[in-house]
Amino acid sequence: MTEVRALVFDVFGTLVDWRSSMVAEASEAGARAGVDADWPAVVDDWRRAYPPALERARGEATWRDLDALQRETLDDVLTGLGVDLPTAEREALVQGWRRLRPWPDTIPGMDRLRAGFVTATLSNGHVALLADLVRFGGWRVDVVLSAELAASYKPDPAVYLLGAQLLGRAPEEVGMVAAHAGDLEAAAAVGLRPLFVRRPGEWGAGVPEDPPDLPGLVVADDLLDLAAQLGC
Amino acid sequence: MTEVRALVFDVFGTLVDWRSSMVAEASEAGARAGVDADWPAVVDDWRRAYPPALERARGEATWRDLDALQRETLDDVLTGLGVDLPTAEREALVQGWRRLRPWPDTIPGMDRLRAGFVTATLSNGHVALLADLVRFGGWRVDVVLSAELAASYKPDPAVYLLGAQLLGRAPEEVGMVAAHAGDLEAAAAVGLRPLFVRRPGEWGAGVPEDPPDLPGLVVADDLLDLAAQLGC
Repeated sequence: MTEVRALVFDVFGTLVDWRSSMVAEASEAGARAGVDADWPAVVDDWRRAYPPALERARGEATWRDLDALQRETLDDVLTGLGVDLPTAEREALVQGWRRLRPWPDTIPGMDRLRAGFVTATLSNGHVALLADLVRFGGWRVDVVLSAELAASYKPDPAVYLLGAQLLGRAPEEVGMVAAHAGDLEAAAAVGLRPLFVRRPGEWGAGVPEDPPDLPGLVVADDLLDLAAQLGC
Repeated sequence: MTEVRALVFDVFGTLVDWRSSMVAEASEAGARAGVDADWPAVVDDWRRAYPPALERARGEATWRDLDALQRETLDDVLTGLGVDLPTAEREALVQGWRRLRPWPDTIPGMDRLRAGFVTATLSNGHVALLADLVRFGGWRVDVVLSAELAASYKPDPAVYLLGAQLLGRAPEEVGMVAAHAGDLEAAAAVGLRPLFVRRPGEWGAGVPEDPPDLPGLVVADDLLDLAAQLGC
């Protein structure tokens, strides 16, 4: 087996807890505006609108960043749920994706993994958003890489291949760390090594995601377990 | 005046002391190979060959990384000086650009500047090289940006503009930090704010570089002085 030399990380759900962070953001926005709603439902619907929005965006002539897509999908979700939130508070929610708390193991786990590997984000969040997010959460990563650099979105194979190329590595020298089967399947299809991290709390009390069925898959309970399994 | 919100940094010479690091690398490579030479002259000639090599490379159809350009210019320089160094040691020297020591103020200075600004490299070194260099030197930066992402080299205006764009900022919200007048002139020409850091030891006992004559120029003695002048 080729040795893994670098790790790229999915961010939303894998390194940061978007749901509890955004439910708090939405509840606060609602309180400020005097609007009552089922905010966990708003957040869950918004997050569910994300993959199809990215899929549509991949077909557009001009690449748009996540803020632009999230603005659109939030409007749709609020309309669908009959929630009337002022524009300023909608924008606060869009910006809230820069203030997502890391999982408890993210800071120490990334530090241990960085000791053994070159590490990079590989997220559908744009570079500017990721920079703010890493600073907010106080976790460390060597390089901020984004689907933006390929002017596309995961699971486009071009995103994974560009990630490996920018790290100066063949795809098989790069491990993709994610809590989502689809991300790992797409990465593995172009040669990256799939590393699944269980995040049973990603959807609150929802059903935890199963690891994908992929040859050579590593399954870890968190980033510290991943570091131990990778020998660092 | 628009407020500066992000800082991008030149790396070679501004954040790291390429000359003393590479003279040590070259002396060690020579000792291993039993080759005697004026290694400071080799390193200085090699570094002088760098701007014209980048200029030529900008005209090529396929973008090539710094390793590829440095291999070519090193061969030329060694031929010019009549130094016969084995291929393996030449490659060790090319890789030596990943092991450049930071200036004494770089680690504490970047930490202070990061407290007040989003920070990014903006170097002609490629992303993979910069990742190794930052890890080697132990300094911190929020985002690793490179001319590679514009498939060009500084002082191409596209590099500076892409840097600002990826940080989600207008050019005038971004300060360019460099020890080189030409870098700042090119950055300022497309709207970035020029911040000059004196590095009188960059060329050893050579003549220190003068700051450029640019409106609004900030001149700092080192990164800690820059942080103080910028109020962080």
